[in-house]
Amino acid sequence: MTQKAFQDYYTEFNSHCYGCGRLNDQGLQIKSYWDGDEAVCEFQPRPEHTAFGDYVYGGLVASLIDCHSTGSASAAAYKAEGRKMGTEPRLRFVTAALHVEYLKPTPLAGPLHLRSTFKEVKERKVIVLTELSADGKVCATGEVVCVRMPENLIPGSS
Amino acid sequence: MTQKAFQDYYTEFNSHCYGCGRLNDQGLQIKSYWDGDEAVCEFQPRPEHTAFGDYVYGGLVASLIDCHSTGSASAAAYKAEGRKMGTEPRLRFVTAALHVEYLKPTPLAGPLHLRSTFKEVKERKVIVLTELSADGKVCATGEVVCVRMPENLIPGSS
Repeated sequence: MTQKAFQDYYTEFNSHCYGCGRLNDQGLQIKSYWDGDEAVCEFQPRPEHTAFGDYVYGGLVASLIDCHSTGSASAAAYKAEGRKMGTEPRLRFVTAALHVEYLKPTPLAGPLHLRSTFKEVKERKVIVLTELSADGKVCATGEVVCVRMPENLIPGSS
Repeated sequence: MTQKAFQDYYTEFNSHCYGCGRLNDQGLQIKSYWDGDEAVCEFQPRPEHTAFGDYVYGGLVASLIDCHSTGSASAAAYKAEGRKMGTEPRLRFVTAALHVEYLKPTPLAGPLHLRSTFKEVKERKVIVLTELSADGKVCATGEVVCVRMPENLIPGSS
């Protein structure tokens, strides 16, 4: 993968998130990329991420969908403006609403694959549709309403 | 608090969940209790649970709402049957759908308070409405559709 991950464009201030911060040693450190017009992410659950037996707990599924989707919202917003990620002004998004449908138990063995499309890309709001699958089967779907962070809340931007 | 937590009635098999399992040393180990007809939980975030700055990452908010709500669904189902938690047959619930509205940033300093009411309590489906607050302010609300686990998926039941 020669692309730089969406999350690796975040400012230092925005890189400590438990879900997606590259500087959070105890966190999940997810990485998202473009695959054509869709945004993808692969994640390997750790044994402690169990719900029961060989299945992942629902909070991890929600966390992955949430962080991957907000990162993808940022990438989509840059793309819509015809700009490269990381250029100023910074486009970062936070979650206004998260909806997850749990369709079947998600295997702890992984790897888990997330794939997102975009229902809406506006300047201040992006709605991301994300599927989480394992072994080629969709285990959960998410709809994430992402809203743009005010620029003055993104220290580290010039 | 002299009540035993909902999660402490779970069978050994169901006590390894990252969110609510008392036997998951690396997990959140949340504890939920009755407060009248409402179900409550208090949780102290850890420093690594940051999103950015002094705020909690959204996945933790979703995880707390999810695990607290499924535990509360179980407690409500027992109550509806006029039985004590832990009696056979076991009533355990899993999440079919999770919806979270993020109303304002959730302070990492905590403690976070969850409080749930019940929109619907049926034999095989319980819908839980949960508010997550800090410093007396509601930071997020959740609606969780919980469905009953088939009894043969609950090893450890007699």
